[in-house]
Amino acid sequence: MKPYPAYREMADTAIANLDLPTEPRQLYEPITYVMSQPGKRIRPALTLMACDALGGNLEAALTPAIALEVFHNFTLLHDDVMDRADIRRGQPTVHRRWNDNVAILSGDAMLTLANRLIAQTPAYCREQAVNLFNQTAIEIYEGQQWDMDFETRHDVSEQEYINMIRLKTSVLLGCACKLGALIARADAARADKFYQMGLNLGIAFQLKDDMLDVWGDPDTFGKEIGGDIANNKKTFLLINATARATGDDADELRRWLNDPYALRDQKVTAVTEIYNRLGLRQLSLEAIGRYNRLALDALESLNLNIEARQAFESLINQMAGRDK
Amino acid sequence: MKPYPAYREMADTAIANLDLPTEPRQLYEPITYVMSQPGKRIRPALTLMACDALGGNLEAALTPAIALEVFHNFTLLHDDVMDRADIRRGQPTVHRRWNDNVAILSGDAMLTLANRLIAQTPAYCREQAVNLFNQTAIEIYEGQQWDMDFETRHDVSEQEYINMIRLKTSVLLGCACKLGALIARADAARADKFYQMGLNLGIAFQLKDDMLDVWGDPDTFGKEIGGDIANNKKTFLLINATARATGDDADELRRWLNDPYALRDQKVTAVTEIYNRLGLRQLSLEAIGRYNRLALDALESLNLNIEARQAFESLINQMAGRDK
Repeated sequence: MKPYPAYREMADTAIANLDLPTEPRQLYEPITYVMSQPGKRIRPALTLMACDALGGNLEAALTPAIALEVFHNFTLLHDDVMDRADIRRGQPTVHRRWNDNVAILSGDAMLTLANRLIAQTPAYCREQAVNLFNQTAIEIYEGQQWDMDFETRHDVSEQEYINMIRLKTSVLLGCACKLGALIARADAARADKFYQMGLNLGIAFQLKDDMLDVWGDPDTFGKEIGGDIANNKKTFLLINATARATGDDADELRRWLNDPYALRDQKVTAVTEIYNRLGLRQLSLEAIGRYNRLALDALESLNLNIEARQAFESLINQMAGRDK
Repeated sequence: MKPYPAYREMADTAIANLDLPTEPRQLYEPITYVMSQPGKRIRPALTLMACDALGGNLEAALTPAIALEVFHNFTLLHDDVMDRADIRRGQPTVHRRWNDNVAILSGDAMLTLANRLIAQTPAYCREQAVNLFNQTAIEIYEGQQWDMDFETRHDVSEQEYINMIRLKTSVLLGCACKLGALIARADAARADKFYQMGLNLGIAFQLKDDMLDVWGDPDTFGKEIGGDIANNKKTFLLINATARATGDDADELRRWLNDPYALRDQKVTAVTEIYNRLGLRQLSLEAIGRYNRLALDALESLNLNIEARQAFESLINQMAGRDK
């Protein structure tokens, strides 16, 4: 096994070598723009790590691994259009820097590019890899649609929320782990354990993300705190606050949610205090702990060598405990 | 060989049997909505015809054929968002009936659905089929981007225009024909002749479409006449008119193009008269004849049996001479 940054650098190099055409410029420049922004490259790194942990051929895993990163960036690009997001990774989003049409069409091209890359999976597991990839893609669209549906609903349950983040965020991490295992010629049962590890890691990761928006340090988190609260975003926290608040807390929460003229900072401070009074920080940590445990259980059941086990264990604990 | 409607009906039945999930509703309803609108199903019909002409297995060709129809409808869906089109096949477009976000996301899901279907091509030619499909998809996005680029340019040449419609429209018809040939186990040279037949048929088809917008009968054409003229759309006709008009015609054409307050009907009538004076109807017919000839040459070089040859010949002549 290598240290995490070595897998990330392999992914970065492969992305830099994608060698896209240059014309028509408005189709290809946005793809280069988003793919060259520095990122954690978690998805391709997971594929490479899973493959390496089973002694698979890393070179064979590299192109399929990059397919997942291109796909992930395509979903961000289209999500940013749908969410009218202006900034991503500190840079203007594609639809802001160019326009909506450019963002739609270059996103489409990225999805087809991802399909081309996944089609280069070695023949012995190509069919499984392509089916896994397409199934994952469909689930991610379903997750995004549920997320948008939740915007206008006031009765979203914690279970529905967990299912939404499972689809929108976590299945791609499960897919990344399983893909690496398949390329290392793992059998179906073993490949599915890798999937479970990635899936539960992904749920813990997203729940932690919800926490960081409220209690994160803006300097290390890398984005402004309180965006979810300001936008009434149905997160694990808001859903649980709505379900649990009673008396004055319930009245106050309802007032902030229904006041379109609320001052952002006042609203963020007040809602955070309600979350604190309701013990939601502890509740979140417990939920993260549960999914973290499920990921570690899946890891343990794989009986990897000590070096591989420690590499995943450290990654899982880092992602559930991350401060950025 | 069967009569054309039999291939169309095979495609219609397979589309009706796609058996999509129902939830989340806003993701899947638009897909059912666009796929169930009646259409000519030219692309899957071409795949089935090409396969049948070579004695291939039609059942094996059906799912890949439908992949092309789903893909084609995905491009229409996203193009309609980009072009702000309100009506398609007499019905409100998806972004009008729902909204832009629904149109973007359900379009993405259609592209992944098309990928799933093309991945079900029989194993003996799957790799070729998938590569052909992905290459065609990329070319279509390039064509759409060139088409949007042309909107703000005033120096588009006929050659650039032909290249744009080759990418945006014709490569998918080439792909459809070649795909059927591959499934019928044609060798590379023969499959490429099918591609050339479909490609040139597609160029003739689009040039005829440009003509119908000006000289078509609105009752049989199925959409309003003059839309391209009203919108200053860079068609074969406008590009040639700009290049060929001199003296008063050039002045008048420039005036209509630059008058944002022109009355639609007056503009359409006046520009049509300029086209008539410049002999552009004849020029278009000659160009269509050239591409029609190339398609027929490719067909002839295939040495198909008389029944298959006549079926394609009649289709090619119909599509270049169609009045709707």
